[in-house]
Amino acid sequence: MAFKEYLMIPGPTPVPGDVLSAMGKQMIGHRGPVFAKMYKEIEESLKWAHQTTNDVLYVTGSGTAGMEASVANMFSGGDKVVVANIGNFGDRFVKICKAYGLDVVDQRFERGKAADPKVIDKVLSENKDAKGLLMQHNETSTAVLNDVEALMKVAKKHDVLTIVDAISGLLTAPLYADKWGIDVLISGSQKAFMVPPGLAFVSLSPKAWEYREKSNLPKHYWDFTILKKHGEKGQTYTTPPETLFFALTESFKKIKEEGLEGIFARHEQNTRAMRAGVRALGLGLLAEDSCASRAVTAIIPPEGIDGEKVRSEIRKYGVEVAPGQGDLKGKIFRIGHLGYIDRLDIVAVFGALEMTLKDLGAKIELGKGVAAALKELK
Amino acid sequence: MAFKEYLMIPGPTPVPGDVLSAMGKQMIGHRGPVFAKMYKEIEESLKWAHQTTNDVLYVTGSGTAGMEASVANMFSGGDKVVVANIGNFGDRFVKICKAYGLDVVDQRFERGKAADPKVIDKVLSENKDAKGLLMQHNETSTAVLNDVEALMKVAKKHDVLTIVDAISGLLTAPLYADKWGIDVLISGSQKAFMVPPGLAFVSLSPKAWEYREKSNLPKHYWDFTILKKHGEKGQTYTTPPETLFFALTESFKKIKEEGLEGIFARHEQNTRAMRAGVRALGLGLLAEDSCASRAVTAIIPPEGIDGEKVRSEIRKYGVEVAPGQGDLKGKIFRIGHLGYIDRLDIVAVFGALEMTLKDLGAKIELGKGVAAALKELK
Repeated sequence: MAFKEYLMIPGPTPVPGDVLSAMGKQMIGHRGPVFAKMYKEIEESLKWAHQTTNDVLYVTGSGTAGMEASVANMFSGGDKVVVANIGNFGDRFVKICKAYGLDVVDQRFERGKAADPKVIDKVLSENKDAKGLLMQHNETSTAVLNDVEALMKVAKKHDVLTIVDAISGLLTAPLYADKWGIDVLISGSQKAFMVPPGLAFVSLSPKAWEYREKSNLPKHYWDFTILKKHGEKGQTYTTPPETLFFALTESFKKIKEEGLEGIFARHEQNTRAMRAGVRALGLGLLAEDSCASRAVTAIIPPEGIDGEKVRSEIRKYGVEVAPGQGDLKGKIFRIGHLGYIDRLDIVAVFGALEMTLKDLGAKIELGKGVAAALKELK
Repeated sequence: MAFKEYLMIPGPTPVPGDVLSAMGKQMIGHRGPVFAKMYKEIEESLKWAHQTTNDVLYVTGSGTAGMEASVANMFSGGDKVVVANIGNFGDRFVKICKAYGLDVVDQRFERGKAADPKVIDKVLSENKDAKGLLMQHNETSTAVLNDVEALMKVAKKHDVLTIVDAISGLLTAPLYADKWGIDVLISGSQKAFMVPPGLAFVSLSPKAWEYREKSNLPKHYWDFTILKKHGEKGQTYTTPPETLFFALTESFKKIKEEGLEGIFARHEQNTRAMRAGVRALGLGLLAEDSCASRAVTAIIPPEGIDGEKVRSEIRKYGVEVAPGQGDLKGKIFRIGHLGYIDRLDIVAVFGALEMTLKDLGAKIELGKGVAAALKELK
């Protein structure tokens, strides 16, 4: 094992030292005034991060809990929904909807491509009875960023409810819930919020609350009506993961200091550097520039080298990268660069990647990828 | 505000310093070997805590998530279930079951009493088609400990599936999943495990897995079949709250060092001291000795003093106690004494309670409650 570790997966992401320290705080009463104040302050920050004036609810759970809660609260048995499916997390939306007895139009796009708004327009035209459109902002499994703004315009035209999973995308690339008219926006603590996993956040438009009223799918733990009622008092319905509230209080100081534009610019620059380095080494990129994720990059290893082999070998240098998922296992490996990742992390990880590829017998010139990355990072 | 805080609510409970420190660890890859090893080690500890050789699954969520997951995985629409309802968390089981369209026999017992096995026997005799019996081990809202062993015998006679919510009771009072034949046993991180909130644990008997196979209620996030499949690899299905895994690794060192018998004896002694002190002050106890919770004590304040007033005034001394819930609001206040609570915490909190009651004009002799408690603690 290496002396020092670099966590470069698309979540959980590294947590800043100040935030780790803040998590050492002792538990407090979750029905008392201190917790209520913290609840409300974080809620305001979350509204800012979602770019909304709508309610934001907390769901104690992984990001998937936020996805399932959104489906269970918005629809009724037999409702037709369209999933703009561009990867594993699109598949997950499909699985959740099917588990709840919805009539799912699974509109799959080629892995590595974004959802085409024209295709979604056609699908919604052919399915006039569709009640909702579900999509990812950023699809982690293929490292693709959707054009949510364009997809939202199509959705508005057909007057369907929109659910956007921005778990891995929020605070990496622009997303404006109110300006773009997103009804249900889901995010998660363990991504660019720079906080450990265990909390999902859901913001809901007035239209989403109308859907909630009509929904008959079973739920209690994450019933949005119950969560909202308690939230008004600055309380969660069930016992909250207080440690993550302490962490968010601290991490939002950093996030707000950098500001939305700064955050987006940093992620965009790191993405460009990653891609320039990959190209300079002669490796492949699963996604095109036009839809490149700002959170993670999916890299196609050189001919004859398995992506899983890269993943296990690069651990020798202390670097943890992510595997290809499903059909993409072995065909790609993924380097996460969201949240608490700065320019020099990109340089360091490129160094590790080059040494690893050399170890595995790839014909590369050491330093070539790093040099190309540096040009983008300067 | 006081200089120093005492958290005396029935969860979240205070977290030992070593455990708080362990939570400062940096995130790691949750699909890598380090996490898998930790997953498996904690699983073994959880089996020991549940006293079972059955599978234990992790649900990222509050305790209620474990309750709802159990209902959603065990039953099918229209199934009849009996809830032995002795308080607020019995009500919660009823609400969850109704939300999922089950046919619920809500067998309510007087608040402050345990479930009477004879009554449950009669109810099950009158409802031969009942598929399950749901109960609390410890009912937090009324501070009552159920006689789970006796209730299990009745359940076996009628061959119903048993779900026991031991979230607040586990590691405070004896509970033996395998010996007593509990099918589904639910516990939660934020109670006597001495770890913050955010993780629930569910152990499942072979009979429970048979029920899982037949269940048609909607679920995906907490589908036990999916969780088990991933668990076999030492992974969670969705991103796990790693901080709590770090914490559990540390807290189990303390828990195992004390041992089950030591843990039960400590909680039993603290309970006796609490009750002796309360009686010496002339205050009332909601529950009788025969069914007294080892996790929390529900105290009836002196005539003319509202329980909520005690709760707000005792904060002056840095002590956080819990309110009465639902109909019991104001009529009782509750002092939690589970998890990281030792004899001297009981002494200290009694001191605060006596001073608070004096402040509120109660006719009590300062030191009388503490003296009675000390006799039990010596």
